Order: sequence, then structure tokens, then C-alpha cells
Amino acid sequence: MQVSFTSADLLAITQPKEARGTTTETVRGIASLGTAGPGELSFLGNSKYRSEVAATRASVVLLPPDYDGAPRANQLFLLVDNPSVALARLCSRIEQLLWPKPAPGIHSSAQVAPGAKVAASATVGPLCIIEDGAVVGERTHLQGQVFVGRGAQIGDDCWLMPGVILAAECILRNRVRLQPGVVVGSDGFGYEFVGGRHEKTPQVGIVLIEDDVEIGANSTLDRARFSRTVVGEGTKIDNLVQVAHNVTIGRHVILCAQVGICGSTTFGDYAVVGGQAGIGGHLSIGSKAKIGGQAGVNFDVEPGTYVNGTPGIPYMLGQRLHVLHRRLPELFKRVDELEKLQAGR
Amino acid sequence: MQVSFTSADLLAITQPKEARGTTTETVRGIASLGTAGPGELSFLGNSKYRSEVAATRASVVLLPPDYDGAPRANQLFLLVDNPSVALARLCSRIEQLLWPKPAPGIHSSAQVAPGAKVAASATVGPLCIIEDGAVVGERTHLQGQVFVGRGAQIGDDCWLMPGVILAAECILRNRVRLQPGVVVGSDGFGYEFVGGRHEKTPQVGIVLIEDDVEIGANSTLDRARFSRTVVGEGTKIDNLVQVAHNVTIGRHVILCAQVGICGSTTFGDYAVVGGQAGIGGHLSIGSKAKIGGQAGVNFDVEPGTYVNGTPGIPYMLGQRLHVLHRRLPELFKRVDELEKLQAGR
Amino acid sequence: MQVSFTSADLLAITQPKEARGTTTETVRGIASLGTAGPGELSFLGNSKYRSEVAATRASVVLLPPDYDGAPRANQLFLLVDNPSVALARLCSRIEQLLWPKPAPGIHSSAQVAPGAKVAASATVGPLCIIEDGAVVGERTHLQGQVFVGRGAQIGDDCWLMPGVILAAECILRNRVRLQPGVVVGSDGFGYEFVGGRHEKTPQVGIVLIEDDVEIGANSTLDRARFSRTVVGEGTKIDNLVQVAHNVTIGRHVILCAQVGICGSTTFGDYAVVGGQAGIGGHLSIGSKAKIGGQAGVNFDVEPGTYVNGTPGIPYMLGQRLHVLHRRLPELFKRVDELEKLQAGR
Repeated sequence: MQVSFTSADLLAITQPKEARGTTTETVRGIASLGTAGPGELSFLGNSKYRSEVAATRASVVLLPPDYDGAPRANQLFLLVDNPSVALARLCSRIEQLLWPKPAPGIHSSAQVAPGAKVAASATVGPLCIIEDGAVVGERTHLQGQVFVGRGAQIGDDCWLMPGVILAAECILRNRVRLQPGVVVGSDGFGYEFVGGRHEKTPQVGIVLIEDDVEIGANSTLDRARFSRTVVGEGTKIDNLVQVAHNVTIGRHVILCAQVGICGSTTFGDYAVVGGQAGIGGHLSIGSKAKIGGQAGVNFDVEPGTYVNGTPGIPYMLGQRLHVLHRRLPELFKRVDELEKLQAGR
Repeated sequence: MQVSFTSADLLAITQPKEARGTTTETVRGIASLGTAGPGELSFLGNSKYRSEVAATRASVVLLPPDYDGAPRANQLFLLVDNPSVALARLCSRIEQLLWPKPAPGIHSSAQVAPGAKVAASATVGPLCIIEDGAVVGERTHLQGQVFVGRGAQIGDDCWLMPGVILAAECILRNRVRLQPGVVVGSDGFGYEFVGGRHEKTPQVGIVLIEDDVEIGANSTLDRARFSRTVVGEGTKIDNLVQVAHNVTIGRHVILCAQVGICGSTTFGDYAVVGGQAGIGGHLSIGSKAKIGGQAGVNFDVEPGTYVNGTPGIPYMLGQRLHVLHRRLPELFKRVDELEKLQAGR
Repeated sequence: MQVSFTSADLLAITQPKEARGTTTETVRGIASLGTAGPGELSFLGNSKYRSEVAATRASVVLLPPDYDGAPRANQLFLLVDNPSVALARLCSRIEQLLWPKPAPGIHSSAQVAPGAKVAASATVGPLCIIEDGAVVGERTHLQGQVFVGRGAQIGDDCWLMPGVILAAECILRNRVRLQPGVVVGSDGFGYEFVGGRHEKTPQVGIVLIEDDVEIGANSTLDRARFSRTVVGEGTKIDNLVQVAHNVTIGRHVILCAQVGICGSTTFGDYAVVGGQAGIGGHLSIGSKAKIGGQAGVNFDVEPGTYVNGTPGIPYMLGQRLHVLHRRLPELFKRVDELEKLQAGR
């Protein structure tokens, strides 16, 4: 991250209510209060770390307006309405430096079929493949080594990072961001057992990804047997997640890393699933339901409830059982004792 | 899925015993009875949904020969011996439209080493790499951005989807289908701890994939330390599955998504492993054994048995314990009560 | 594995204390004592298999110096100080044949930005992309279809296998080996919930991989929100592992396949994590701590301790509970009995 912000840059970006002290250092990185050194910026985002400000060696510190300490020599305090917001503004600036808007156009090494339609404002990076009949929308960016299959449709302002594979006929709406290595539209896992062999059931549906969805690195989403596997608007999916065929995920859902969802299950809006949880097939997970990390769910989940454990059980019962489970040795002893007393009678 | 079937097309494909009613709609999609609308085809594959037929808005419905209801206006009922088989026939037709047999030949952008042998009937898509000494069989299709390492061998009628990596010397027999992003032949995870460091054990074996195997997106299969990691004929592996070095998987085995198998374990024919299950190393899993989703297995499993839970236990005991585990709070109370009575004596 | 070793080759490589018998076979493979046949080499690495030596059909057998049996006809025994070390020496030789040191240079199909710096001794294989400002060190090998993002830095003697993606600004030190499909530098999974939507928190940090790290196929390592996600020197990571943003992994740590680590967690040196385990966020895992396969850890772990189960508990307690858990049916019966006796009083 070759960033370089002078004090003047930082004043312009964060627009503080007050600047206290000065520094001659240019800021080349961001770090927490405890680990920052000269040339780094830090911030007080949570008041419980307030005591760490006095000792920090950061050259610049973003602080809330009521912070009353003084900076050390060659240190600049910037008092802003909300240090977290000011930091986010700075990070957005860094993001633009890290990933500048690419120039539109199709790289000479990309393989674009004559029948594909690529918007003039789109960027198709090196070594991408766009098959016949595919559509790439305005300002969409295929970064490099991206595969877009026959008849696939990509909306506007999408970003497909290196190594992404979008299989035939699948659809991305607008502002979809796919991290490296994501596979959209692999075949669903469907076989009929006939004469001692697993015969493949054709998987001829698609995957439809709605607006503003982001999907993490190397995650896989299977095409439907027929009709559609759907990911709703605003949903965010972490790395190495498996979404099976005919699953329907609602809007603004969160699926953490390594979650696995079996076929035909439906998620309501705003559901949240913790890392490595597994959800069985043909289930209904209600809106705003929460499923704990590593939980195994093989039943419908009511809207708004919290499920945990393997097999999944309601959260409060799970917590209770966890405590009692650890007390099993004691319980066995107590029953031994009771039996001895009984026998001695 | 830009399909379009007229009533005449559907009569020709499904060859019904009887056609009841007519529709002017062309069929552009397939959906379940409850969700289908005009321009879609539906089907009665399971008699428990029989009551939904009367209300379906599908333009065409595949029904068993004994169905006695009448279609609504502009609706066509096709009575066939087996609606599921008729549907599969239709899906196969769609499959051919989605993925037409590609023309043989090597794309101009593919990088094929002079010492590689590619059958004249094979198709090597854009931006593939085929290293020296590799062999690609008759009618095999490398779709795009596929890597075939030095000396690797691919049989006839295989299909390697975009982004597949087949490392040096590994072997695919015939009709093997690898979904996007599959890695066959990564190094096994083997180290010796010497002088405070993990020294790599060379992994110089191969992976051998027998006839008619299919492997899901982004799954990884490690090459053997020496000799072979083997996947037997007809076995089907879902997405994001990990198969470690020197594992031997029998014929017609099913491994669901995100399963992990440690080194040197052996599976008999027709074993089935549920999603996210983990199988320890150097174990023997008997033929037709079933292992439940998320199970953790660290012992040999007898042929034909069903194992579940973490650590895995026999299925019936697991079900029993699951019920009793939820009753732990009650058991603690009952023992409290007994102790009080005892003390009061 | 098209290897071919004559007896003379094997004498030169293993330098035995004594050679007993002779064989006219050339060795074309390695196998265990029980499965080896003519033309294969086997070895006695563990004394418990000593009884299998007499029956082995291997043409050549590596044996400890005190082995006193005689070879059969056309069989060669090589008595060496340490058969495992001799075997490793042979495997290293095979490794060099399998993956000969590639000639330095940039393949004509690679896309290297003018502003990238590639050492003259480095090898950039076909269809790689190296973006502007990236640096590739001495003798480093990008095998094929590798992506190196803007400003990324790769040290000396690294090996990036096919399909590896190293995102912008991330850093690999020296002798780092990335198996196929590894993603280094995908965005961390960070959102703020604002007005009913998940707003992305920019992820502008990097991933830093220290010397001698190896990472398994299709594993994913997220860039830090700011600052760094770090993997320490000598650490080995297996396939399909997820490392979230801002995680710090110490030196010589082992992470087995499909492990998931949530954000900002820190690992001490020499920690070991079993397959499919999940580690929560903002935790501290002590040096030399061991975490069992499939464990779920949501608390700090002391150095040198062993944790197991879901949720994770100390290993010895876990083993105890596992036994008692299976005895729950018996315990319920015993309490029933006590209650009956009590009632009958």
C-alpha cells in the first residue's frame, strides 16, 4: 500500500473541527493505537481505548471532538465529529488509489466472441473469455482471466475479479462484486441411481444474482436443475461458501465463510449464518433468523429466531445444555452416591 | 435459458399417450406447479402435489396417464407414462442447446506444447495450456483457461470446464467431467518436523480418476506422496471437497459438498458421505457405508452401517443421545430432588 | 510418473551400507510392501511392518542395517542407515524429474505491464498477468495463468502454481510456494449495517506472507481492513483454508484442510489446527496450542494446551464427556429406578 498523505492532505480529507499539534511525517499507513509508529495514522474509534491515546507513537491520530489531551512532539491530533467516519473517508481515498477506475476498452489479449455485446464504457482486462451471446453492461470491469459463458448477462457497474467464472446463461444484475475465483453456475449435484450407477440429472436452470450482491473468493453457486438459483439484492457472501441448486436467498442476507447450503432451501431477508454452518435441503429459514457458526440445521427456522449447535437447537437451550454437558461427570457421581445410599438401606 | 418450445415440439419430445387441451403459448421455462406461470411448463412428479395441478397457471403440464382433471383455457395437459422421465428428456434437449457439442480443434490462443498429443476430434478452447508430454483423448473438451500439466493424460469424451487445473502426470480416464475451478494433483500436505521447522516431504505420486467420475467446482484432490490417489469409476464428488494424498475412493461413491478426507483413507464402493463431514486419516470406510452431514469420523466404519455426529457414532445411538441430551436440564433437577429427599431422611 | 531407475542409479542415490541380491528390473514406481510388484521399490519405514518384507514382490527394498533376511530371486535389498531418509532422497530426485527447473524468461503469451519488474532469472509462464508496479524476484516461477496485481511484491525462489491470484500490493517473501488456485488478498468481509443495507467497509490493507510458507490449493487469505494480514515464517497451510482479514499467524504453524479463521485472531508460533476446525474472531491462540479437527473455538487458548469439540473444550475433559455422553441412556434409567424406589417408600 504505497500511500502517502501529508498533513495538508489529511486536513483536506477529514475536515477536522480542530487540529492540535503538527507533524513533519507523511502518513504511509494506518494502524491501531497500540501498534502504530511514526509515519502511521491511528484513531480512537471505541472509547474503551481512550487511555491508549497518550502512549501512541502514531504521527497522526483521529479523535472525537471532546478529547482533551495534548499531542507529543511531532504528532498531529485531528479532532473530528466521528473518527470512524473520518477513517472510512480516508480508506475510500486509499481504495481509489489501490484500484483506480480502469480505462474502458477490451484488452488485446481478451477472447471476445463476435456475438457478445460489451458496453463501450466497460473494461475487459487481459486474457478474459467472453462467449457468444453474452452481454456486459456499462462501466462493468472484468479484471483479468475472467470467463463469461455463452448467453450470460452482466449488468452495469459490476466488478469481476481475476479468475471469476460465470457459466452459460447466468445473470448478474447491477453493482455485483465477485471476488477472485468465484464460480457462478456450476452444475447442481443431482443424480438418479439407476442400475447400480448414478445417472446425471441435467442441470439446465441458471443462477440469478440481484443488485449489490458481493461474493467472496472461491465460493461456488450451482445452477438450478431448472428455473433459478437466486441470491437477493444486497446479500453478502464470504469466501468458500457453497450454495446448491435451486436455493433462494433473500435480500440483505449474510453468509459467513465456508457455509454450505443444500438444494432448494429458501432464506428470508436479513438472515445471518455464521461460519462453517451447514443448512439442509428443502428448508425454509425465516427472515432475520440467525444461525450460529458450525451449526447443523435440518429443520425449518422461524423468522427472527437464533439457532445453534449440531444438530441445531434454539440458542438459549443450547447455551444451557453446553453448561450442563460439562457437568456430566459430577452428575454420574451424584447418581452413584444415591445408589450406594439406596443399597445400604 | 433462451429456450422456446411450441406445443408441436413438446409433443415430439415427450410423445404423450394423450394430449388434453391446447395452448398458444410457447414454453420458455420450467417451474414447479405452485410457481409456474404462462409460458412455462410444469409437471406432476410426486403424487403428493396432485391437488396443485388444478390451480397451476403453467401453460403445459406433464401428468401421469391416470390423471383425470381437465385443463383450463389456453392450457395443455400431456399425459405420459412417467412425467419425471419426460421432463428429463426435455431437460436433455435443453442441455444440448445450452452446451452444444463444440467443433473440434485447438483455439488459436491456446498454448499447446509441441510434445503434447491432442486427438483430432478433441476441442481445446481459448487460453488453455497443455504442457509437454500431455495427452488429450478423442472428443474431449477443454473449455477455456484449462491447465494440463506435463505428462498428464486425459481419456476420451471428458469435459474440463473453465479454470480446471490438472497437474503433471495425473490421469483422467474416460467421460470424466470436472466442474470449474477443480484442482487435480496439488501436492499432498506432508512435512517432517526437523530442527524446529516443517520440512516438505516430496509428493511425487499422482491422482488417477477412473471412468465416469464427476467432480464439483473448486474441489481439490492431492497427488499421492508416491503411488496414487484414486477415485473409482462412477463416483460423484460435489463442490469444495478436499481429498488428501493417497486416499482411495471406490466406485459409485457420493461425496457431498465441503467434505474433507484425510490422507490414506480407503472407501468401499457405494459409500455416501453427507455435506461437511470430516473423515480422519488411515481409515477404512466400508462399502455402502453412510456418513451423516457434518459427522466427524475417526475410526473404521463397517460396510453398510450409518454413522453420524461428532465424534461419529452409530446413527440410532446418535438419535437417542440427541433426544436425551436435550433432557439434561430435567435430569439434573430429578437428581437434585432425589438428593434432597435423601438428605431429609 | 515416467521414472526409471536401474540398480546402479539406486546404489548411487541411496548409497547403501550393503546391497543384498540383484534384480534385472528397472524401478518405475514406489509402493508399500503389501502392494508393490515387480518393477517397484518398497521400504521398511516402520518396524511394525517387518514381517511383510519376506512376502513383498517389490524388485527393490530399502531396509534398516540390522535386517537379516535374504532377498528372493531377482530382488535387491539395499540396507541403509535410515530407509525413510533414503526414500526421501529418491523422492527428491523424482521431484526434480517431475518438475525440472524451468528456463528463465517471460513466455510470449504472458501479459506483463511495462511498469512491472521481473528478475532476469525468474520464469513467467504462459498466460500469466503481471500488473503495473509489481515485482518478481530472482528464480521465482509463475507457472501459468497466474495473476499478480498492481504493486504486489514476490521475493526470490517462490513458486506460484497455475491459477494462483495474488492481489494488488500483497507481499510474498522468499521461497513461498502457493498451490493451484490460491487467492491471496481478496477483500476482507466487512460491512456496516446502515439504513437497512450492508455498506462495504473498504479493505485497503494487504496480506504479507513470510519466508518458507506453503499454502494449499484453493485456499483464500483476505487482505486486512487496513495494515496487514500476516502469515509467519515456515507456516504450512493445507487446501481450502479460509484466513480472514487482519489475522496474524505466527511462525511454523500448521493449519489443516478446510480450517476457517475469523478476523483479527492471532496465533502463536508452532500452533497446530486440525481439519475443518473453526476459530472465532479477535482471539489469541497461544504458541504450541493444538486444536482438534472440527473443533469450534470461541475463547482464547493458552499456550501449549489442547482443545477439542464444539464448542471447544480442553481435550481431556472432552474425552471424558464423550464417554459419559454415550452412557446417558443408562444414567436416565438409573435415575428412573431411584425415583421408583423413593416413591415406593
